[in-house]
Amino acid sequence: MKKFALLSIVVLVLVIGAGALASSSANSGTSANHSIIITLFWIALLLVLAKVASLLEKIGQPSVLGELLMGVIIGNLFLVGINFFEPIKSDTLLAFLAELGVIILLFQVGLESNIAQMKKVGLRAFLVAIVGVICPFILGTYIVGPLLFPGLSSTVYLFLGAALTATSVGITARVFKDLGKLKTSEAQIVLGAAVIDDVIGLIILAVVSAIATIGSISLGTVSSISFKAIAFLIGAIVLGQFSAPFIGKLFSKIHTGIGMKFTLAVSFALVFAYLAGKMGLAPIVGAFAAGLVLDPVHFKTFKRPKAIDDLLESSKTLPYKHREKLKQLAHHHSEKHVEELIEPLSYFLVPLFFITTGMNVRLDSLFNIKILIVAIGITLVAIFGKYVSGFFAGKVNKNLVGFGMVPRGEVGLIFASIGSSLGILSHELFSVIVIMVIFTTLLTPPILTYLIKKQEKPLVS
Amino acid sequence: MKKFALLSIVVLVLVIGAGALASSSANSGTSANHSIIITLFWIALLLVLAKVASLLEKIGQPSVLGELLMGVIIGNLFLVGINFFEPIKSDTLLAFLAELGVIILLFQVGLESNIAQMKKVGLRAFLVAIVGVICPFILGTYIVGPLLFPGLSSTVYLFLGAALTATSVGITARVFKDLGKLKTSEAQIVLGAAVIDDVIGLIILAVVSAIATIGSISLGTVSSISFKAIAFLIGAIVLGQFSAPFIGKLFSKIHTGIGMKFTLAVSFALVFAYLAGKMGLAPIVGAFAAGLVLDPVHFKTFKRPKAIDDLLESSKTLPYKHREKLKQLAHHHSEKHVEELIEPLSYFLVPLFFITTGMNVRLDSLFNIKILIVAIGITLVAIFGKYVSGFFAGKVNKNLVGFGMVPRGEVGLIFASIGSSLGILSHELFSVIVIMVIFTTLLTPPILTYLIKKQEKPLVS
Repeated sequence: MKKFALLSIVVLVLVIGAGALASSSANSGTSANHSIIITLFWIALLLVLAKVASLLEKIGQPSVLGELLMGVIIGNLFLVGINFFEPIKSDTLLAFLAELGVIILLFQVGLESNIAQMKKVGLRAFLVAIVGVICPFILGTYIVGPLLFPGLSSTVYLFLGAALTATSVGITARVFKDLGKLKTSEAQIVLGAAVIDDVIGLIILAVVSAIATIGSISLGTVSSISFKAIAFLIGAIVLGQFSAPFIGKLFSKIHTGIGMKFTLAVSFALVFAYLAGKMGLAPIVGAFAAGLVLDPVHFKTFKRPKAIDDLLESSKTLPYKHREKLKQLAHHHSEKHVEELIEPLSYFLVPLFFITTGMNVRLDSLFNIKILIVAIGITLVAIFGKYVSGFFAGKVNKNLVGFGMVPRGEVGLIFASIGSSLGILSHELFSVIVIMVIFTTLLTPPILTYLIKKQEKPLVS
Repeated sequence: MKKFALLSIVVLVLVIGAGALASSSANSGTSANHSIIITLFWIALLLVLAKVASLLEKIGQPSVLGELLMGVIIGNLFLVGINFFEPIKSDTLLAFLAELGVIILLFQVGLESNIAQMKKVGLRAFLVAIVGVICPFILGTYIVGPLLFPGLSSTVYLFLGAALTATSVGITARVFKDLGKLKTSEAQIVLGAAVIDDVIGLIILAVVSAIATIGSISLGTVSSISFKAIAFLIGAIVLGQFSAPFIGKLFSKIHTGIGMKFTLAVSFALVFAYLAGKMGLAPIVGAFAAGLVLDPVHFKTFKRPKAIDDLLESSKTLPYKHREKLKQLAHHHSEKHVEELIEPLSYFLVPLFFITTGMNVRLDSLFNIKILIVAIGITLVAIFGKYVSGFFAGKVNKNLVGFGMVPRGEVGLIFASIGSSLGILSHELFSVIVIMVIFTTLLTPPILTYLIKKQEKPLVS
């Protein structure tokens, strides 16, 4: 308990100190404006809080759950009159870093996968994606919507169904990553399905928005959107595979340093994310594709860290057997090195994404019992609709795939806010969708962790 | 030549592709807004261009010069009708990353120094700082100002003198870092002096602004500003040294992973940068102080990279002598590891700072011959004024210290723009100061590089 007490003191001092400073007259700096300076503090505070939250690992939960929950806590303190953390919600610089964070995360996830693995699970991922879209859409639009909210227009049900379709890959990817299970077939299927989901989700969003605003949509528009999205994915993968070795070789002529290796990898990810965004897809889809096509072998012309070279140097006097063993390890390290280079960037940016995602959860939407009950119903439908898709994943742990597809995250919220801004979704229905997103997002990490651990240690009867 | 041709093709394809996309109708993404998406592209492009510019290393120049020059080129293409890069100049997200970059750079520079070293050069750094402020100030205010621009009010000369005082530590630190000379006494003296300069510069700015706006300034205000600035520096160093080991030990109880080590170090830097900003100092001064007080030993409770552990594991079967040697190297690596962990962040952010700094250089201000000649005069004074300070650096390479203090960078521009916005500096005088900043910034890297190389290889007569 002593360490908790000490920790609380550190955090308290940070918070009080900042509070005192924040209330003192703002003295704008000589070379940076006020908003940049305060953001420096928020970044540090959120990173430290995220690490405090990783105490959850001690009870076997992935640290992403800790980050989300910490976000939920500090994001809802305003309900008890503490407004200290509120400025974070409107800090655009922080929001940008968070977005960069999820892009880097999906790039890392893509790096740990590769085309060959994806091809192996491709068909199953496709089936899972299709079922995981159709099932919740039909349930939402034609059954649960009319049942729970009778007498509304069919457009409303359409939006409810659409909001139930899109999988948020961030949460699931992070859980698999935290538990070191990214390379399992289950993880690969979920990742592949989530990417395909995003493409389908884009098309659904366009269709539903068009129906809501102009009452109809032409087949031409639908096919144009579909074509662009699919062309991007195929184009990115083909072009990326073709160009990556060429670019790697080319730039290694300028410099073979670690900085060049890092820059090429990150720039690759950012350009793909940008192109995806340009095509109307989520930038994370592009970042994932970039990671997928980049193979460590493309960087074999670049240097490994100096410490490894030092070790190898000192091994020159060793007996042959040991020397070879060391060389082998060093070679392995050199190949893994891109991932290791990206890691610090991910330490810096990724927690900002999950903690701010948590902050956007508004607990006061849970206070209305009637809405809460309906929302729990919708959540069960949301979970069931995706869970079913797991049965099409072939010979793997179907529960794991099914639950891996459950989180709706920010994509569900986008549907909800567009529907709300178009005046289609009432405040009540908007809250219901938000609560569904909260539940699916927060329930997935512990459920996946439980399923993975159960699989690892079969119960002894 | 072949590789240059190939390089040009890659860059051209990037640029044309982006141009084509940029002109196509903007399709806002599903989960990120347009400004974030385009910024992703700018980051990638600038990072790649910065790496292309590092070709300058092949002719023995530090890569920071390449980054600056690349910035100057792309920032001035609008003069020949190419407006492609112009949006970068108003991209606030990019500006924020650049600012983060220089903070991380000064933190790294601080990490490579430590309190003990600084104490050793403290007095000399102080002398260099004082002389380096007084000399250009007197030259500017009382001699060159009245001589070159006769008949203006004394306030104008005051601003000109003030603009000549502030050293920009970023450029010099980066040159010493690029050439691996940060630990030399010369570098330490310049760094110490530049930090003290920033404190003095803050006071001068306050005084000069007050005189310009309200005609006078109370001694109370001057002492209050001075007190706050000095109290921050002393407070940060004392408190930091006291708290760092404690915080390190505390958080290692939650987690001893690499992520925790990274987070603590970066958060430390950001909090110090924030506090400096709050006190009206440049955030980089705080980041440098944070690096200064953080010692690798504070992180000895944290893990080293897994690759090193793997190597050590495989060394178990080695003869004692070799095993010890490997352990020693691994231990060394573990201590250096914080710096290595920060490095990728610096690859990502630091080039953005220097390339955008270069972009802010407006070559059209050089087109007016009369202004240009006057500006060259002022530049020589600026250089001479700082060069003289090198003679107070004791038994070191005085040329190196003197020229190390020369760059004015962004701080000089702040003086110029405040003077201009207060209506004190005419457009001409503003241009003169800008040109002085350009010259001191761009001349320093090659001069320092020349001096360092000359020192390394004494001429054989």
